[in-house]
Amino acid sequence: MDFKVTPWEITGKVDYDKLIKRFGTKRITPKLRSRIESAAKGSDVFIRRDVCFSHRDFDIALDEYLHGEKFFLYTGRGPSGKMHIGHLVPMLFTKWLQDAFDANLYIQITDDEKFLFKSDATQDAIERYANDNILDIAAVGFNPDKTFIFKDTEYIGHIYPLVERIAKKINYNTVKAVFGFTDSTNIGMISFPAIEIAPTMFEKARCVIPASIDQDPYWRVQRDIAEDLGYKKTAALHLKLLTALTGPEGKMSASMPETAIYLSDTPEEVHNKIMKYAFSGGQETKELHRKLGGNTDIDVSFQWLHYFLEQDDSKLEKIRNDYRSGRMLSGELKEIAIDKINALLKLHNKRRESAVKLVEQYMYKGKLAEEMWSKTYR
Amino acid sequence: MDFKVTPWEITGKVDYDKLIKRFGTKRITPKLRSRIESAAKGSDVFIRRDVCFSHRDFDIALDEYLHGEKFFLYTGRGPSGKMHIGHLVPMLFTKWLQDAFDANLYIQITDDEKFLFKSDATQDAIERYANDNILDIAAVGFNPDKTFIFKDTEYIGHIYPLVERIAKKINYNTVKAVFGFTDSTNIGMISFPAIEIAPTMFEKARCVIPASIDQDPYWRVQRDIAEDLGYKKTAALHLKLLTALTGPEGKMSASMPETAIYLSDTPEEVHNKIMKYAFSGGQETKELHRKLGGNTDIDVSFQWLHYFLEQDDSKLEKIRNDYRSGRMLSGELKEIAIDKINALLKLHNKRRESAVKLVEQYMYKGKLAEEMWSKTYR
Repeated sequence: MDFKVTPWEITGKVDYDKLIKRFGTKRITPKLRSRIESAAKGSDVFIRRDVCFSHRDFDIALDEYLHGEKFFLYTGRGPSGKMHIGHLVPMLFTKWLQDAFDANLYIQITDDEKFLFKSDATQDAIERYANDNILDIAAVGFNPDKTFIFKDTEYIGHIYPLVERIAKKINYNTVKAVFGFTDSTNIGMISFPAIEIAPTMFEKARCVIPASIDQDPYWRVQRDIAEDLGYKKTAALHLKLLTALTGPEGKMSASMPETAIYLSDTPEEVHNKIMKYAFSGGQETKELHRKLGGNTDIDVSFQWLHYFLEQDDSKLEKIRNDYRSGRMLSGELKEIAIDKINALLKLHNKRRESAVKLVEQYMYKGKLAEEMWSKTYR
Repeated sequence: MDFKVTPWEITGKVDYDKLIKRFGTKRITPKLRSRIESAAKGSDVFIRRDVCFSHRDFDIALDEYLHGEKFFLYTGRGPSGKMHIGHLVPMLFTKWLQDAFDANLYIQITDDEKFLFKSDATQDAIERYANDNILDIAAVGFNPDKTFIFKDTEYIGHIYPLVERIAKKINYNTVKAVFGFTDSTNIGMISFPAIEIAPTMFEKARCVIPASIDQDPYWRVQRDIAEDLGYKKTAALHLKLLTALTGPEGKMSASMPETAIYLSDTPEEVHNKIMKYAFSGGQETKELHRKLGGNTDIDVSFQWLHYFLEQDDSKLEKIRNDYRSGRMLSGELKEIAIDKINALLKLHNKRRESAVKLVEQYMYKGKLAEEMWSKTYR
């Protein structure tokens, strides 16, 4: 079966080489990777492991940066439910980028989008998720003076004139082709792309968007109209989707709890989910496994360790060799993943508990937040 | 040639009986007219002269009013240029309704719409017109404690959640059918109807919209979705369009200055325009006119006097008789119209000069305005 990737739906096993061709983006080459690491004066697991695999114009953004023109970062979250580990990943990568490039960061909480796109969503429920998600995002520990987190429904008054200028440049034909809207799509959804595009024009500098690749259609539209409006085409860094617990097809889904590890899962829940659902690359019996070894290419526990959980390259290599050779059993591999996840969640939830004050900074009182509340994009 | 009436275009000579059928509205019958005058404890030229000729559910709004349930009023202005006399008319009628029924009144300035719908409009130009138009509206003298005038771009933050709820109920099919939008319509225009509909839900009470009949398509959409959202179907009172100076086809147009009298025209300009352009019902020569008399049905000066300029019914009757019999010449009729217009403009501009403080009341400081700025339609 062929795969499908849109901002609202991912089905099938994604072939990232094919996706690059379909979307018309560029692969992050080994050469660009070294340039990024050199400019950043450090490495990051997402860059090193090819999780951040594709881009638009990040080579140009890097050239500009090296010539003294800083870029700013923009990412977002659609608050349709509790956050799972797959949602945390782009945030962790974004933090690395912010620290490495000392960049302003805007995080859009699209509470309007989630209400408009989910037929059964109420505004009250979306607001509860939005506030809950913001705590999780704050726990990542962005720079309080250079980060602005905003909910669309709260900040719309400040960006509306900019949203109008963007909306005037996009016709129905375009959103029909890019997003697959139809005659029965509601008119709020139809104009929403203008709102997701607006933050790419929060500064005259170049915007760089670290996000999962499924959001790319928005950036394609932005790049067609930005220069007409006096802004730069946005750059983007695309992340692969974290494999669902249940296997390489589809992505973790809030509506199928067995496919995901939530940031709020207890250590016991994590243990049970991984043991029960994590798709295994092991053989059918212990004896066969010892003899033939496991398949790390399809084993989700290993994929997660590779994706970001085991940041030590030599330790990861040892796990790979042990599992492939049959020295390590599936249960043992799962235990390693469980320990890593629980350590991550423990740290995350400790930070989350003390994030209330940080939220205040990011949303209203920090240096960048105060600037943003004092301006209107007329 | 057939006529056409949409919120953005009026062509041909409007046949109001046909329009009532096309739009599916109801005629204001003599019986309803007396009920209105009795409830209002007074008469108004627009009601008496059948300028306010059609309605939706105003009979129901009146029943509710007589049972102690007050309605609120909502009208608006698209600030695409200077205001002319045709724009003043619905405002004058609205003032009469506000005073007669002691109603709250919301006036929406659709600065967003005008930017989105006029391809060559800049936001700066629209803002200048908006501020200029608001002074003209304030000069009408609405109740400062019961009137809220707002620009969409300024107030959007307070109504956005309500706009979303409305937008979620309307699909592209509907706006395509009702407004004639096409694939090349920009996405801002496509979602704009949700913004024009929002003020009909500012209160749980019934909304009554006094406006020219060309705005009716919006109310048709509102009436399809209001009850689902927990509000009442809006009522509407439809005004005929003030005949263009140049004759009964089309409406006064900002892009054709000879068709309209601007509120800012000097007495000399008024004199010259009426003398030069006002379509006449007179005969070709003075002799023929004395013999055959003039035609008041097509004479624009007479139409304007009838529409609202000569509020004294017996004086209007005398003018009609004198003109039809040939006793009054076209030049004399024009002079009467000129005097009436100049008296109106003189009074208007005197009021406009001292309206700056009133604007502050209507927009920010009056009782209703303060209430509106303290609330958000979550």
